[in-house]
Amino acid sequence: MASRRPALRLLAQCSSRSQSSGWRCRRALSSLPSSATTSEAPAPLRRYLGWAAFGLLVASPLAYKMALDEPLRMDSPTLAERDQQLKAEQGVSDVSPMRLRMEKFVKEQQKLIVQALQEVDGTKFRVDEWQRKEGGGGITCVLQDGNVFEKAGVGVSVVYGTLPKPAILKMRANHKNIADGDNIPDSLEFFAAGLSLIVHPKNPMAPTVHLNYRYFETANPDGSPGAWWFGGGCDLTPCYLFDEDAVQFHKAIKDVCDKHDKEYYPRFKKWCDDYFYNKHRGEGRGVGGIFFDDLDESVSDRENLFAFVQDALKSFLPTYIPIVNRRKDMPFTEKEKEWQQVRRARYVEFNLVHDRGTAFGLNTPGARVESILMSMPLTASWRYMYEPEPKSREARLVEVLKNPKEWV
Amino acid sequence: MASRRPALRLLAQCSSRSQSSGWRCRRALSSLPSSATTSEAPAPLRRYLGWAAFGLLVASPLAYKMALDEPLRMDSPTLAERDQQLKAEQGVSDVSPMRLRMEKFVKEQQKLIVQALQEVDGTKFRVDEWQRKEGGGGITCVLQDGNVFEKAGVGVSVVYGTLPKPAILKMRANHKNIADGDNIPDSLEFFAAGLSLIVHPKNPMAPTVHLNYRYFETANPDGSPGAWWFGGGCDLTPCYLFDEDAVQFHKAIKDVCDKHDKEYYPRFKKWCDDYFYNKHRGEGRGVGGIFFDDLDESVSDRENLFAFVQDALKSFLPTYIPIVNRRKDMPFTEKEKEWQQVRRARYVEFNLVHDRGTAFGLNTPGARVESILMSMPLTASWRYMYEPEPKSREARLVEVLKNPKEWV
Repeated sequence: MASRRPALRLLAQCSSRSQSSGWRCRRALSSLPSSATTSEAPAPLRRYLGWAAFGLLVASPLAYKMALDEPLRMDSPTLAERDQQLKAEQGVSDVSPMRLRMEKFVKEQQKLIVQALQEVDGTKFRVDEWQRKEGGGGITCVLQDGNVFEKAGVGVSVVYGTLPKPAILKMRANHKNIADGDNIPDSLEFFAAGLSLIVHPKNPMAPTVHLNYRYFETANPDGSPGAWWFGGGCDLTPCYLFDEDAVQFHKAIKDVCDKHDKEYYPRFKKWCDDYFYNKHRGEGRGVGGIFFDDLDESVSDRENLFAFVQDALKSFLPTYIPIVNRRKDMPFTEKEKEWQQVRRARYVEFNLVHDRGTAFGLNTPGARVESILMSMPLTASWRYMYEPEPKSREARLVEVLKNPKEWV
Repeated sequence: MASRRPALRLLAQCSSRSQSSGWRCRRALSSLPSSATTSEAPAPLRRYLGWAAFGLLVASPLAYKMALDEPLRMDSPTLAERDQQLKAEQGVSDVSPMRLRMEKFVKEQQKLIVQALQEVDGTKFRVDEWQRKEGGGGITCVLQDGNVFEKAGVGVSVVYGTLPKPAILKMRANHKNIADGDNIPDSLEFFAAGLSLIVHPKNPMAPTVHLNYRYFETANPDGSPGAWWFGGGCDLTPCYLFDEDAVQFHKAIKDVCDKHDKEYYPRFKKWCDDYFYNKHRGEGRGVGGIFFDDLDESVSDRENLFAFVQDALKSFLPTYIPIVNRRKDMPFTEKEKEWQQVRRARYVEFNLVHDRGTAFGLNTPGARVESILMSMPLTASWRYMYEPEPKSREARLVEVLKNPKEWV
């Protein structure tokens, strides 16, 4: 299963630099719609916010250990500084490095998604932005207790850091070109950017959705580009199963996959079913979608993979918004709300017990816990021995979660 | 921290035997007050229930691995069979083996506790009992959505099994007399019995309480007694801190400790603060109590330790019932209920992210998940960036959780 771990799980070593440098943080970025006011965070909060990026992007006990290593000092301009200068002088275009293009893309998408969800809900997101001195930063947007959404979180993270030797050696298992095997450097600079999203609607008939797309790159000691890869996916978690929703969701993402490579969808669909599996319950978290990692030049060239990731992320709104609009005003009973709350608890169980990213984030000293746990539902319920009635809609959902279906 | 892991975390190897032998299960043991009816469980449920004991008593990745090992077959009567015969012929008295005395004691205490909590609440517990063919079994009692208690679970487990060699080698770190170092056997029979309890009251002014006491013993290959030890503790988790409750709780358990050894309380109090620590939040789960493990002949003789554990468990009702009676009818606001729900989420986070027993139980194939998760609150809430007002009662609680106090 080595190939199935999230590609960015080794990012955490960058913590040494971010920890020592501190971050600047403010709420309510003017370029994003927001209900909050701009303010400087106090120093401890700044340091606290500075870790937010990791929890959203990384997952590995090795990385955790490395997060405690001493910072590396370099006198030449860092990758972050060079990127900052490049952006200031030339802006970001199709010929810019992929780092800048991915950052620009996920930030644009975050705005679009936040705006679209706000329109559906009629409530503004709270926006927390933070920046790192060396460059990069993050934006966490959360809508809570709205009209349509119980909780919606849309987060962007951009991380610059330094990989220590053990992390480089570990990463070589999947990415041989990260360093020459006869000449492994003591450290390598890296970059990571990604968007994470989770939406828990209020109406039990409307499904929860989760999405994450990310890009990772290392720089060689001479500053030239090193290894790179993409990871991500999206998956749907209904409490009441409407086959047409699951079919529409899978069809949309299959269409995106097929446009790029006919082998993507079957491979990434299975990967998703395998990863989002609540082992102790013997059931999937939801009805799946796609999940992938380590997509590098062994799979396709960088432009093609970026185009695939762009198409996949862009397909989110036109797929999910119609689903949620169909369901958000459906009538439901108190008993159906209770079932939703029991299913919410299963979501919590997966995220806290099995999800490697969450576990790693929470075990990283100083992590921005609130950004990691924006994925938690607003409310959840644990009822002892709560079993659906045989042949009920609830029982059918569980049956499908235990035996993942081919939806398209 | 090696000495701080739960003593019983290596129990899981017994799974090989229990898995292959199956269990008999029925609800509503006649000797226990119950609202449920007696019934035989279907075969898959029987196998499922058969694992309940582990989740409540064990915690170790090593044990998890061992749980997958092949069963050991023995032709001579097993420890369970010998104990069964002994009970049938002579009953259980002060001269019986400690195994039978501990089992009898925790089952008696379970009845008393269930009865007392029912009297406070006015609602009956649901009682699920299961038995193993070779002897031993478990009883899980749960009261849910009552008048006073949101959720109360009182579980007893009695486990007979076989330790494989790697588990024996691991256990020798804390218990040299488990086997002769020059002659480690391939396997050893063991016994474990314990009582676990958790009570979440409805009123936010009434504190949650958790308690667990357990006894572990191995048998030498010739059937003679091998190593043995006790473990356990109890701790209090208020949402609103009444100093008098914390003081009374700590004083009661300190009195029990002091009666047996003046060094117990300070040592076990710190052990509790260290163990029930929500590391990612930088705060304790509650205001503590005591926690201990591996109490064997290096600490005191078996009779004295049993007397200590008996006194500790017996002190639960006279300590907790007055506390809950003082708080259960206090007025509270919607905002205070909301704070309780946020604190419940912290409880869930500790149990699912950090508690070794829960994590191990959930990762054991076939574990009785519902018995393990009877510790979950009925409801919990995750609110993004939920911060108490400065100098509020909520802020004072957090302050105390971040800086554990000496209460007596």
